[in-house]
Amino acid sequence: MRDTCCMCTEECLQQSRAGRLSRRAALTGAAAAAAGLVAAAPAQASPAPAARLGSRLRDLTYPLTTTFPAFAPGEEAAKRTWVTIEDDGYYLQEWRLLEHYGTHVDAPGHFVPGGRTSTELRLDELVTPAVVVDVAARAARDPDTVVTVDDLRAHERRHGRIPRGAAVLMYSGWGARAGDAAAYRGADANGTLHFPGFGAEACEWLLRRRGIRSVGVDTLSIDPGRSTTFDAHLLLAGADRYGLENLANLGRVPPAGATVVVGLIPFQDGSGGQARVFATW
Amino acid sequence: MRDTCCMCTEECLQQSRAGRLSRRAALTGAAAAAAGLVAAAPAQASPAPAARLGSRLRDLTYPLTTTFPAFAPGEEAAKRTWVTIEDDGYYLQEWRLLEHYGTHVDAPGHFVPGGRTSTELRLDELVTPAVVVDVAARAARDPDTVVTVDDLRAHERRHGRIPRGAAVLMYSGWGARAGDAAAYRGADANGTLHFPGFGAEACEWLLRRRGIRSVGVDTLSIDPGRSTTFDAHLLLAGADRYGLENLANLGRVPPAGATVVVGLIPFQDGSGGQARVFATW
Repeated sequence: MRDTCCMCTEECLQQSRAGRLSRRAALTGAAAAAAGLVAAAPAQASPAPAARLGSRLRDLTYPLTTTFPAFAPGEEAAKRTWVTIEDDGYYLQEWRLLEHYGTHVDAPGHFVPGGRTSTELRLDELVTPAVVVDVAARAARDPDTVVTVDDLRAHERRHGRIPRGAAVLMYSGWGARAGDAAAYRGADANGTLHFPGFGAEACEWLLRRRGIRSVGVDTLSIDPGRSTTFDAHLLLAGADRYGLENLANLGRVPPAGATVVVGLIPFQDGSGGQARVFATW
Repeated sequence: MRDTCCMCTEECLQQSRAGRLSRRAALTGAAAAAAGLVAAAPAQASPAPAARLGSRLRDLTYPLTTTFPAFAPGEEAAKRTWVTIEDDGYYLQEWRLLEHYGTHVDAPGHFVPGGRTSTELRLDELVTPAVVVDVAARAARDPDTVVTVDDLRAHERRHGRIPRGAAVLMYSGWGARAGDAAAYRGADANGTLHFPGFGAEACEWLLRRRGIRSVGVDTLSIDPGRSTTFDAHLLLAGADRYGLENLANLGRVPPAGATVVVGLIPFQDGSGGQARVFATW
């Protein structure tokens, strides 16, 4: 596992903390960071995973439909019947998909020029320990809440240290709204979205102090809905890490001790893409 | 695990063996069989998997590109850049996909009216023991070769009994041709395809005698390329089982003792679809 925080990541984090960067400049800095972190390992390597499949298995994936809430209206998937058993002897559908619809991965290249794409994430990055940070009670009162460093420290006091290489998953209870796009997106009269996400400081802390592999959320974005600067995306991609969005059933995964299996479709030049995500413990 | 062969499956198998059914009639019979076998279990169940994640992990998935060989020319995926970091601050692609391109699952509904679709395959069906049957030496001499009952019995003599609920995977060495669509499809002057697959008798034997969960191949189809009757598809779908096609790296998976993890994207009404498939042992 290559979890060491390198100098360029540290530099990127410091720049972001200081708030001295425009979004475009942050992207450029993050690109430089990512460039130095791209793994040389082939996609077909056979590493030893850091965790093991247990006796419990839970699906963290929403069915891929044409009505699941999209980040922006119009980004929903579309499908049509291609052939039918009646006419052709077999049945299949054709899909039109954007890579960030439904349960999906954000690869580093989604936000970082030259960042790794879907085929470049290694298997040992897709099977990792998982922790679930529960902010559902606060999110029910405040849709703009974010995961904070205090939340992470409190989680560790109760459930033990967040493992190196972990997927850190926010459970906000937002899945209860997934059947209602307006409620899930939380757009106000100005079009600003409102749903929980990861705070920038929490991302920095997880990357620098815990050497995590990924963060995931049960909302449309690892950044809170109202974000205009996409700090969580930029920090994570800048550190050559990936995100998981629109995860289901996080309330049914233990706070610590699970393994997440991220079945990312290896899209050519993919900025991420649809994934079948399991948890096991 | 619901692996018991029910009466209607037995009837379907007998009809198919006797060769008394037209393809359409076989489909109808298979539909009836499937109807009685549709699982009532919800997709979000948490069953105990039959096998465990080991210390070795192998990717059985081809990158999803626009140039991978399609069963029929014109069925390749297409993609285009949707937004760019330069212009929009982030990058993503749009895809046009048929459900049976690249490494993918054939759900029962692909060939059976009313058969289960992608969202209806349970997690305990997607994580199963795996065995790999090696017919590569014969396939190198005869592209029309099929996996036979003799192959399966010989495999068991060397590697032990095929486990109930297993994925039975044919390794034919066809992956060496995956970079050359003409060689991978093996079309002759008449347009007939030539590549190895499962014989009908072997499928019957696996379903009836071993209660398997799935069969998989490193070719375009679980039926051999020259098939016009799609016996393997009909037998498997008729027994409410699924297929795996265009698997990579099967020559690097042990003949017995591995577990396969099938990360099928749960396409709405899906006849199957793209999957990230891992083996572990």
